[in-house]
Amino acid sequence: MKSNDNSCDCRIPFNIVSGGVTAPRGFRAAAVSAGVKNPKAERLDLALIASDSACVTEGVFTTNAVRAAPVRLSAQHLKAGSDVRAVIANSGNANACTGLQGIKDAKAMAKATAEALGIKTKQVIVGSTGIIGMTMPIERIVPKIGAVAAALSAKGSDDAARAIMTSDTKPKSFAIEVPMSSGTVKIGGIAKGAGMICPNMATMLCFITTDAKIGASELKKAVRHGVDHSFNCITIDGDTSTNDTVIVMANGQSDAPVIKRGTPDAELFRCALHKVMLALAKMIVSDGERVTKFVEIRVRHARTLADARRVAEAVAKSTLVKCSWHGSDPNWGRVIHAVGYSGARIREELVDIYFGGLQACKGGLVTKTPVAEMEKVVKQAQFTVTIDLNLGTADYTVYTSDLSEEYVDFNSSEYSAAVHAKRQKGMA
Amino acid sequence: MKSNDNSCDCRIPFNIVSGGVTAPRGFRAAAVSAGVKNPKAERLDLALIASDSACVTEGVFTTNAVRAAPVRLSAQHLKAGSDVRAVIANSGNANACTGLQGIKDAKAMAKATAEALGIKTKQVIVGSTGIIGMTMPIERIVPKIGAVAAALSAKGSDDAARAIMTSDTKPKSFAIEVPMSSGTVKIGGIAKGAGMICPNMATMLCFITTDAKIGASELKKAVRHGVDHSFNCITIDGDTSTNDTVIVMANGQSDAPVIKRGTPDAELFRCALHKVMLALAKMIVSDGERVTKFVEIRVRHARTLADARRVAEAVAKSTLVKCSWHGSDPNWGRVIHAVGYSGARIREELVDIYFGGLQACKGGLVTKTPVAEMEKVVKQAQFTVTIDLNLGTADYTVYTSDLSEEYVDFNSSEYSAAVHAKRQKGMA
Repeated sequence: MKSNDNSCDCRIPFNIVSGGVTAPRGFRAAAVSAGVKNPKAERLDLALIASDSACVTEGVFTTNAVRAAPVRLSAQHLKAGSDVRAVIANSGNANACTGLQGIKDAKAMAKATAEALGIKTKQVIVGSTGIIGMTMPIERIVPKIGAVAAALSAKGSDDAARAIMTSDTKPKSFAIEVPMSSGTVKIGGIAKGAGMICPNMATMLCFITTDAKIGASELKKAVRHGVDHSFNCITIDGDTSTNDTVIVMANGQSDAPVIKRGTPDAELFRCALHKVMLALAKMIVSDGERVTKFVEIRVRHARTLADARRVAEAVAKSTLVKCSWHGSDPNWGRVIHAVGYSGARIREELVDIYFGGLQACKGGLVTKTPVAEMEKVVKQAQFTVTIDLNLGTADYTVYTSDLSEEYVDFNSSEYSAAVHAKRQKGMA
Repeated sequence: MKSNDNSCDCRIPFNIVSGGVTAPRGFRAAAVSAGVKNPKAERLDLALIASDSACVTEGVFTTNAVRAAPVRLSAQHLKAGSDVRAVIANSGNANACTGLQGIKDAKAMAKATAEALGIKTKQVIVGSTGIIGMTMPIERIVPKIGAVAAALSAKGSDDAARAIMTSDTKPKSFAIEVPMSSGTVKIGGIAKGAGMICPNMATMLCFITTDAKIGASELKKAVRHGVDHSFNCITIDGDTSTNDTVIVMANGQSDAPVIKRGTPDAELFRCALHKVMLALAKMIVSDGERVTKFVEIRVRHARTLADARRVAEAVAKSTLVKCSWHGSDPNWGRVIHAVGYSGARIREELVDIYFGGLQACKGGLVTKTPVAEMEKVVKQAQFTVTIDLNLGTADYTVYTSDLSEEYVDFNSSEYSAAVHAKRQKGMA
């Protein structure tokens, strides 16, 4: 059976712990207010995460052809194989569509961070999120880097999570402790998302730390698996932003043995990392701009995994379907309509559709399930829509949200003439 | 230069005439109230278009894998090569996801029409639009077919255009007179659309008549060209409904000579048919559900036509871009973001973006154009966004709309529990 099934097979109970990115040993974090967006606002907007020792590090960056300066620089630093020690990240300005000046500014952030920590510039990853097309107020950011480095602490994760928020309504943080064959490792992460995650993603930033001892190739495999089964199930169809970044840093400071390929520990670590990513990915969907419903779309028994994915994404992207959920309407007609244009091979007379456990459509036709019962499902803040194609063995699951009037209102008025004037001033 | 450029090259001034589908010789139309959706409502909902003589007919149907019964039946009638004489069409019920009963009902409509007109069942095309998943109230429709046939008149086009409306706010009709090498031909059409045309299309129906003398293969070429450069530029990316149908009937009753392949007359006819289709397609976008802006997206100088199309469709489908237009915000950042994830090959540092004639972005960076000037453009009910990739020679244009809070509200509340109960009752 082919599947992107996101429920872990492993039965080992992970302990959820506090501390976010500072839960694993040897990591500290902090945040300060640098006035990136507004010099007068006292809002945390510059975050630093640092490890006491060099980290094996893996990164996944946006597939958008327009790549922000910090993404270009960070990808270069990772490629250079330098042992990463720190992540410096800001909200309020994405440093995207900013040309050569943008690259200079991202480098300046890395350099100032390296100087403050006594490490090399190449050991610093840079992340930015916010408005596109405006040069960075680098003159306000660089002078604050000494302060954020001085503030680093084992209790700084929540501040860092807050500092990378844009239109997020709450910080996103998750950490677990994983019992290994001997000893334990911890994995912790912070993330920011918001924007309507699909079909048009706002920047997603996710920084994950672990004290596991793991080699680069094993870490890479675990990160790839985790991202494919978490963030890639919410970032539909390549609609990535200019700045999307997932960074995983492993400093090896735990007392557990080295995680070797093909061992139960390797499997366990992969599951645990996936669990952290999936938890953060779900928080991102739930906190999408003006989202009122969290919806899991399960496609079952497609001919191929690609077909299963096509159906799941077509339904998740349909504005008409999303609107019906917002109105608590179990409208299977709109769902099958999207299934039909998804491009997947289907046979209309075999399609079953369920809201929660209730069958709305059987073999392409309406069922006798009482509407009032199905409405109860769709009225919930969280529910599942299952589409069974009854054709093959491939399954695919995505996570998405409804579409509200408030979303449209919010996104019609977010950027003002003042923002444009600022962009121009910044470029002058 | 590769292009889907929709502006006609031909300079011949066509005369716009009144009469819609009855403008060409030998066509009559009518509509009656059959109470399809609501037996008590006195609303025109059953339309008939008939030709006095057999027509060379070409049809283009939905690519949705879920095909409504009338689409299946009509495609079969066209394939059988029967000389079409009439179109019977209803609003209020799409006769989609209705199984075998749906096919029987569509056949019953064709048969009753044939009997009323003294023609064969296969000479009748059936079109339906409305709610999915509910069996047709065929017991109310068939008894009215005699009345609509009796009402056929050369002045009936407007009634027919009204009868096929669903959430359309106004009937859509367009007709022209075309001077040929000798004599003139007329081409007239009616259409219905609404729904938000992209990314999720409501059913689009379009019926076009002409008195031109033209063979099947020449008509097919003209229809294919016309649809590709009109309706396919508003129905983005295969998001077709279960019922979409374009029918073109040519009865040969004009005094102009037969249109032969490769002649100036053939070229002229193709241009004229395209003009009618484009006019109707633009009316459909402008009348989309709660649309307040009509936007033409012109992509220029892509590497390939496929790349140009990818960029145009990504921008047209972006809910964030559509929201910014609704808010009269010339937000080029959101536009370049969509350009970036479109999948087309681009070079960020070469991308230029214009609102109307004003350049907002040059080489991927903000320009000095005053924001107030660009806002004036985006405040208009109709404007153009040009994206110049400066890479190749391929151009592509699509037509789209903004996205309003009212759209979401409308589509959250359109279908009620009562509708579902009706669906179930109909299937009982």
